[in-house]
Amino acid sequence: MKNEEIKTLLSKMTLEEKIGQLTQIRTSYYYNSNTSATGTISKLKFTKEQKWMIGTVLGKLDAKMMFEIQKEYLDNNRLGIPLLFMHDIIHGFKTIFPIPLALSCSWDEELIEKTARVAAREGSSSGYQATFSPMVDIVRDPRWGRVIESFGEDTLLNSIFGVAMVRGYQNGDLKDPDTLISCVKHFAAYGAAEGGRDYNTVDISECRLRNEYFPPYYEAIKAGAKSIMSSFNVLNGIPATANTWLLRKILREEWGYEGVVISDWGAVKELIPHGTAENSIDAAKLSLKAGIDIEMATTAYFEALPELCKDKSMEKLLDDAVERILLLKNECGLFEDPYRGISYEKEKQTLLCSDFRKVAREAASKSAVLLKNSDVLPLERSKNVILIGPYASNSSILGPWSLDGDLNDVITIEQGLINKNIRLEGVETTCFNEISKEKSEEIIEKAKRADVIVLALGEEEEKSGEAGCVSNITLPEAQIKLLRCMKKLNKPLIVLLINGRPLDLTNVIEEADAVLECWFPGTEGGNAIADILYGDYNPSGKLTMSFPRGVGQIPVYYNNLATGRPKELLKNEKRYKSQYLDVPNEPLFPFGYGLGYSKFKYDNLNISKKELSKKERISCSINVTNIGKYTGIETVQLYMRDKVADISRPVKQLIKYKQIIINPNETKTVEFTIDEKDLRYWNGENQYKSDEGLFEFTLGKDSSEGISFEVRLIS
Amino acid sequence: MKNEEIKTLLSKMTLEEKIGQLTQIRTSYYYNSNTSATGTISKLKFTKEQKWMIGTVLGKLDAKMMFEIQKEYLDNNRLGIPLLFMHDIIHGFKTIFPIPLALSCSWDEELIEKTARVAAREGSSSGYQATFSPMVDIVRDPRWGRVIESFGEDTLLNSIFGVAMVRGYQNGDLKDPDTLISCVKHFAAYGAAEGGRDYNTVDISECRLRNEYFPPYYEAIKAGAKSIMSSFNVLNGIPATANTWLLRKILREEWGYEGVVISDWGAVKELIPHGTAENSIDAAKLSLKAGIDIEMATTAYFEALPELCKDKSMEKLLDDAVERILLLKNECGLFEDPYRGISYEKEKQTLLCSDFRKVAREAASKSAVLLKNSDVLPLERSKNVILIGPYASNSSILGPWSLDGDLNDVITIEQGLINKNIRLEGVETTCFNEISKEKSEEIIEKAKRADVIVLALGEEEEKSGEAGCVSNITLPEAQIKLLRCMKKLNKPLIVLLINGRPLDLTNVIEEADAVLECWFPGTEGGNAIADILYGDYNPSGKLTMSFPRGVGQIPVYYNNLATGRPKELLKNEKRYKSQYLDVPNEPLFPFGYGLGYSKFKYDNLNISKKELSKKERISCSINVTNIGKYTGIETVQLYMRDKVADISRPVKQLIKYKQIIINPNETKTVEFTIDEKDLRYWNGENQYKSDEGLFEFTLGKDSSEGISFEVRLIS
Repeated sequence: MKNEEIKTLLSKMTLEEKIGQLTQIRTSYYYNSNTSATGTISKLKFTKEQKWMIGTVLGKLDAKMMFEIQKEYLDNNRLGIPLLFMHDIIHGFKTIFPIPLALSCSWDEELIEKTARVAAREGSSSGYQATFSPMVDIVRDPRWGRVIESFGEDTLLNSIFGVAMVRGYQNGDLKDPDTLISCVKHFAAYGAAEGGRDYNTVDISECRLRNEYFPPYYEAIKAGAKSIMSSFNVLNGIPATANTWLLRKILREEWGYEGVVISDWGAVKELIPHGTAENSIDAAKLSLKAGIDIEMATTAYFEALPELCKDKSMEKLLDDAVERILLLKNECGLFEDPYRGISYEKEKQTLLCSDFRKVAREAASKSAVLLKNSDVLPLERSKNVILIGPYASNSSILGPWSLDGDLNDVITIEQGLINKNIRLEGVETTCFNEISKEKSEEIIEKAKRADVIVLALGEEEEKSGEAGCVSNITLPEAQIKLLRCMKKLNKPLIVLLINGRPLDLTNVIEEADAVLECWFPGTEGGNAIADILYGDYNPSGKLTMSFPRGVGQIPVYYNNLATGRPKELLKNEKRYKSQYLDVPNEPLFPFGYGLGYSKFKYDNLNISKKELSKKERISCSINVTNIGKYTGIETVQLYMRDKVADISRPVKQLIKYKQIIINPNETKTVEFTIDEKDLRYWNGENQYKSDEGLFEFTLGKDSSEGISFEVRLIS
Repeated sequence: MKNEEIKTLLSKMTLEEKIGQLTQIRTSYYYNSNTSATGTISKLKFTKEQKWMIGTVLGKLDAKMMFEIQKEYLDNNRLGIPLLFMHDIIHGFKTIFPIPLALSCSWDEELIEKTARVAAREGSSSGYQATFSPMVDIVRDPRWGRVIESFGEDTLLNSIFGVAMVRGYQNGDLKDPDTLISCVKHFAAYGAAEGGRDYNTVDISECRLRNEYFPPYYEAIKAGAKSIMSSFNVLNGIPATANTWLLRKILREEWGYEGVVISDWGAVKELIPHGTAENSIDAAKLSLKAGIDIEMATTAYFEALPELCKDKSMEKLLDDAVERILLLKNECGLFEDPYRGISYEKEKQTLLCSDFRKVAREAASKSAVLLKNSDVLPLERSKNVILIGPYASNSSILGPWSLDGDLNDVITIEQGLINKNIRLEGVETTCFNEISKEKSEEIIEKAKRADVIVLALGEEEEKSGEAGCVSNITLPEAQIKLLRCMKKLNKPLIVLLINGRPLDLTNVIEEADAVLECWFPGTEGGNAIADILYGDYNPSGKLTMSFPRGVGQIPVYYNNLATGRPKELLKNEKRYKSQYLDVPNEPLFPFGYGLGYSKFKYDNLNISKKELSKKERISCSINVTNIGKYTGIETVQLYMRDKVADISRPVKQLIKYKQIIINPNETKTVEFTIDEKDLRYWNGENQYKSDEGLFEFTLGKDSSEGISFEVRLIS
């Protein structure tokens, strides 16, 4: 259908049909009589007739179901407007990749795009047209369970990886039935929930929103994401769902966004508990006015819009929303092919194919971050190993938001070791929170017979993800005790961590000889971990979120604003500077940090010019030499500090990075260009600008150290 | 001098003399040759001649010194403009009262005013004319050391107690030489430092600033405070010191403030590390433009303004600032009597006189909060007591910011018990952070002989106050161990806490039979504590800051905004609501909480009308009956919830309270009036308004429970 024909179609629609397009319900309403509109457990207030007017659905599906639902729907829909099928495909569909926080630690844009591409190929083959991904919410609070779904604390990385995912899902042409519509979320600043408690209030100045929180959303929609989801939270007093400033002024007027805006689950009616709407009518009115096109999971629009749209201005808003939704359906070719080329055969060939598993293994290898290694890794294959801990042979390593992942498809850590033909002295899968004295003694006896002890520790999946928020971010006491018992045996002691948030690892780091943060690594987790343990992959992951020294240090992130009394400058002042008396200001592991089996030496800094005018570029380069014995990937990071600006600026800000593969004894020159655009920021008066004057740049392997140089921006 | 004559005086001043008025240095520059302008350790860049042009000084003084300094100064100042002497008199001068956070727990406005009145009489008799008090920064993070200086987390209480202090200091007529100019601080939102780390970034939306943070400053200046101090922190990108929006638009234009604005210590030059000024010239320019009249402790103005004020608009700003400073000096009568009636005799009679000590004892009694009492308090005088802990006979109970308090004047806890002729089995003053095994055993043996064990635990003074920030808010492990040892003896176990912040008391509450939060109680602390222990005072303090269940629960405060998924409403939903999985949302002890030796029953709620129009008032009343055996003070609290508004509103908000004294078996009726003004708030568009619709009110003894009723606001 040509886009112009959409208007004609719109003109034929009844008010009720239009409202239907704005309503999203569960897919299960179409295949499960218990949850159908007329079913007994339905709380949704819509009629049997309205069921055939619904615009979009979300939830579980396969190719066969999609075909049947769409067919029955089209048989009943008066104008033949097909349903659009959406789903939470977050880090893979059947082939599960590491959680997004883990993926971000690969710092590998192409890899991340590839995972999204695989997810789109799998998901579309099962009948979906859209996924609620990527999430590009900046996160600084490990208590928040949904850090698993973020790309970490940095604005640039969230932008780059968000865009990579949009590309991977949409692949430049939504008519291609192998693609998925990408839905960027959660607009805006959902990750800044107070106290790290999900759904809680967010309060951030406009200046900070523009500099730190907004850019990833902006970049994702500029990259073509066709839909965006508003967030659950209050933003500066007003719930995002009803936030006209956010959804109209910023998103549509300022950024020129023309795609669809969808609410989060039930969020329209949640305006009532939020206390900004008295009832569903209020809620519908506020949401439509603010710019919510699709109401997810509730039916305030159905209840209220028939009356509200007697007002011409409201009707106009309704028509605009319907048009955007129909355009979206058209954009992914649904009008031409409502089944979008699905077939049982295609689905069967696509899901979990070996190529996809390879991507999953690569992603899991590249996502793991080696936090400590006292020369015990990589392990020798000849040594016999005891594998102990709650994740030893546990297949629940897919992580939250892997709704369609099958535990039977998972390579556990044990299986990974078996696949490498390692001599396993024993495998002891313990509980997470309690290990009995007897069990403990039994384990100790077995461990005495092993050459190497590998502990697979971590947090249960339920402790992360949506609503998976905790006030305590240490490992359970039972696991720390296990670690201490093993320490006493004086054998190489390796800790593998399976978890979804930066933990307080103070105790763990003290005791273990090596610590590998594996995150929730996905379907191929066990293989990837074994690859790293035995040196078949040289670990290259770098943290994208700081690891605090304790929950009392939160928020701790690398790019905090300059204070007037910086601890690092006031060396002679004991007290009156910005610090805690009982812990350093620095996290246990900083942003950008990660070890490998090789070491890289940085030297020979070269800068083309020390002055930069607004019309030119300068370049800087550095030599990186692999002084270790293993070929490895190094991520060279370029940080900037604007020394004087209209506002206090971050003490460091990642502006570029490059990944290189270097062989032992090889030296590579890494070059970056810098131009005036890289130096811009939003000042307190909503101007996006750069300032003449001094800038400090630092090239290094993480955010805590590097080689610095200054450049002056001139007119 | 008539205020009109100030302009004439101004016209006679040289540029340098004007700049001098804007500069504040330490008093010690006038009496200590080591720190004088020409002394060796001086880093200040001003000349010997400029020393006699300085406008104001801050620091230690007594009547004699003041006389001598002022005399020498006036002998050297060309136009005979006297110096103004300022000082940090925060919770008393020589007679030290409990820390402000403690005072606020009295909920006794008159008492707080009285403490400020005493401080003003003492301070002025020693030659001061101004104090940097009150601090009315809302605080929600116990990690921040300066919570000691705040009136807690509530906007209304900070407003009321701030105003009470302004009245106490200024007493309605600054010409009266018994008064002090009050300086409200720290404008704005200094208490919201990120991570509770002093001097750190503050980022708060305008909406929240107006509803929660601004009102106490506003009320204090409306009550006549003649000076205000800008805060150290960045506020929404821009340091307060250079924040034109804050200091000109809000403070002067919107609020009509005409008094003096003073920077915090060194804050003008701190614009350089903040990264908003390149050098002193920039810093001076930005500060004067933003509205800083007095530069504290540094000399950017002296260095830069001679050149900058060649610009007429800058000269105008300078003249305006000088005029305000001269007016302030005139307002407190300095031109008529530069010595402001001081005399050695007056000073001697005033300082620490017995009347003032009485106020201190009353204040300390009323500030203590009884957190737990399993029927062990009050103690019988016949029982013999062992007193153990770091604060047993320790006189360091004055708390931070008691610069002029003398430890020799302090009544320790031991002395308080001695003064009551209690049989003391022993007194063991331990270290804070370590108790040796031997010592511990010795203590146990002695404790076995006592009837009652009283532990005086707490934090060292240095762990609180400015820059006294910590990431861990539990008592030191050694003290918890001591407590557990004592618990095993199965005797009545009373814990007294001397500290400056809400602590994580989870462990303490479990072990002890009674816990009394005494804060830093000041000069008469020991007497006041003994009064409570033996029932000579029935404890009546109520918390003004929530006590968290752990540092991982921060921020926890009673008046958080409504979320869309409130835990308290979603009883049938296990996971998907705003909560932590490992701790409740509620603090260990809520705002408003505090026990006494009596119990009070609330009943017979009466509401004059269920509808409120914008032009009338309604009243509500409740009966409070003392069902215990002790006469006591009860603080009846009235909370409001605006059910539907333009923005999400607090789930509860204190709008009124009343204190009553009730005898055993007596019933008193407490009445409140409510009118439309009580219901107003700032919406997202900077309108101060109320909304027609439902409001819920709750009358109760603390913020967690009470008797509720609804009222509808009609047009």
